[in-house]
Amino acid sequence: MMHKRALVKPDGRALMLYARAPIDGIISAPSPSSTPHAPNPHLRWHPLRAEWVAYAGHRQHRTFLPPAEYNPLAPTTDPAQPTEVPAGPWDVAVFDNLFPTLAHTAHEPPELSIPTAPALGACEVVVFTQDSTATLGRLPLWHLELLLEVWADRYRELGQRDDVAYVFPFENRGVEVGVTLHHPHGQIYAYPFVPPIPARALEQQRLYFEEHGEGLLEAFIENEVSDGTRLIYNGPLATGFTPICARYAYEVWVAPHRGVPSLADLTAEERTDFARALKTILLKLDGLWQRPMPYILAFQQAPTDGQPHPEAHVHAQIFPALRMPDRLKYLAGSEIGAGVFTADTMPESTVAQLQAISVVVDA
Amino acid sequence: MMHKRALVKPDGRALMLYARAPIDGIISAPSPSSTPHAPNPHLRWHPLRAEWVAYAGHRQHRTFLPPAEYNPLAPTTDPAQPTEVPAGPWDVAVFDNLFPTLAHTAHEPPELSIPTAPALGACEVVVFTQDSTATLGRLPLWHLELLLEVWADRYRELGQRDDVAYVFPFENRGVEVGVTLHHPHGQIYAYPFVPPIPARALEQQRLYFEEHGEGLLEAFIENEVSDGTRLIYNGPLATGFTPICARYAYEVWVAPHRGVPSLADLTAEERTDFARALKTILLKLDGLWQRPMPYILAFQQAPTDGQPHPEAHVHAQIFPALRMPDRLKYLAGSEIGAGVFTADTMPESTVAQLQAISVVVDA
Repeated sequence: MMHKRALVKPDGRALMLYARAPIDGIISAPSPSSTPHAPNPHLRWHPLRAEWVAYAGHRQHRTFLPPAEYNPLAPTTDPAQPTEVPAGPWDVAVFDNLFPTLAHTAHEPPELSIPTAPALGACEVVVFTQDSTATLGRLPLWHLELLLEVWADRYRELGQRDDVAYVFPFENRGVEVGVTLHHPHGQIYAYPFVPPIPARALEQQRLYFEEHGEGLLEAFIENEVSDGTRLIYNGPLATGFTPICARYAYEVWVAPHRGVPSLADLTAEERTDFARALKTILLKLDGLWQRPMPYILAFQQAPTDGQPHPEAHVHAQIFPALRMPDRLKYLAGSEIGAGVFTADTMPESTVAQLQAISVVVDA
Repeated sequence: MMHKRALVKPDGRALMLYARAPIDGIISAPSPSSTPHAPNPHLRWHPLRAEWVAYAGHRQHRTFLPPAEYNPLAPTTDPAQPTEVPAGPWDVAVFDNLFPTLAHTAHEPPELSIPTAPALGACEVVVFTQDSTATLGRLPLWHLELLLEVWADRYRELGQRDDVAYVFPFENRGVEVGVTLHHPHGQIYAYPFVPPIPARALEQQRLYFEEHGEGLLEAFIENEVSDGTRLIYNGPLATGFTPICARYAYEVWVAPHRGVPSLADLTAEERTDFARALKTILLKLDGLWQRPMPYILAFQQAPTDGQPHPEAHVHAQIFPALRMPDRLKYLAGSEIGAGVFTADTMPESTVAQLQAISVVVDA
């Protein structure tokens, strides 16, 4: 059972609180900003890359590593210094990003010599917990399961909107990937189009589905499970593994065995096993070098573009930023300029290091 | 007039010396490595991204910021401590990378459940000058012109090989983009296939060319020139500008006006103007904040895949890593996971800063 309470901030932004227990009592939604929220980002078409680029000029001066005494993602304790979330009996909070790249208020893009469009959609912040010192991997299993339900709720609610074709939850973790706030949190970008990377992946999945009558990722996972070399977590309903085509040294994918299109389509049992897989992987990544692993965690789901997507298969991809304890994997000429990823390590040897890490999941 | 001298290192790697003056006298090619060079990288097919990933396990422990007294790109002075290049009257040197991601010796890739292939092709290092303290932008114009001729020579020579479909010169500059050696240098990757980013751009150019009978980039440049807002260098034959669809804050493109397919097809006059444009841009980027700007410089040219490419138009793209003097542009969730670039600045306002910087090009 998940309880949800929807509030509106004084500047007009939405705030949703989620918890296992009922969220009773008087709770008002705080905001560090008092000016009405009316962001107006726009899109420009890149004719060589054939993709949209989002422009949000107001983002340049956004909050950057504020002092520890001001954490905008911690519950408000002093009404004179409002944060983004209230005190109260909530486990997970979601609110509209103060500096969005995409917004339903976007309108009248500039008229240029290339196509432009309002950068419609949504950018939400997902506060994983009230505890500033927690990490996603250290959350108890029940809390991770709740978070998966929250992401599912956001998928359904945002996906219903006319201006949203793709709901993309992700976590940027660590200063190495540019994180500006240390409180455990993620983001959801709801795009008005299907973005290039999932579009390309879905096209491959569609072609495979048409040819083989089963999902590309289902077959891929079956192969990883039967091979076993690169398996890290092998549960009854979900699996975590370093893919045979890993680009990052310690890349891991997590997916349910069944090719369900989104987090909203998982059964309770699948969600439990997915949470267990995710927690196992995250704890192993932090245990590898006894330091928090910086990473990008990305959830790929079916588009919400009104089309059927039998080819889609929800999965999480984790891209750790380090290739050795003190060395970042830089994306440079080959990756950025040509689009060819160069891996310095073999998936089979890096995964062995993750397999060897012991973690306690039931805590 | 360009003089060239081809040598072979003791470990079997190629070394080419280039200069305006004749390269006479006895010169032997040094190498810091004495073991025969026989790298064997391989490719694995990523079924979701529909692209090749290159695996070169020997790269993990490559030279990383060695002490100043050992610079492998400086001319060898002590035969007991050989570097990668000899002393002698050369201006630019090119040699086979000791840690290549692509190599003509690649053979027998592992048999896996996904397609694999030998990572054929070449990885070359281009030493821009003998002067360790120089920068690409501070090289005299004649030296930059020579370098453009060297890149043209490498395009022709590598492009003729059966195992090379795309010749890609680039420079990674600055520790912020992962550079391991500070001596001014670039690299050339010669891929056995047309990489995803140029493949997509060429497809757009092909469609445009078929529809309009002129080049996409020619029309794009004409528009930037006639608009003028984002122009930085406007020469008689080449132009440097921040594109209307810039993704990076201080992104700049440099191209000849004429839609020639490669650096090897530039006339001497076009090459001179291209060098002048490039030097102007690079000096402005360093002048912006009075510090060396970290960047990726990428040259896109026609594939050497045996097909005609009337749609191709050689151009350089410069992607500076900073969006403010002390703030990197991080590629995170949206860029890495979804492929949607989020720009925090408007091209029209950042380019104004570059336009305002005065530089002396004829030095």
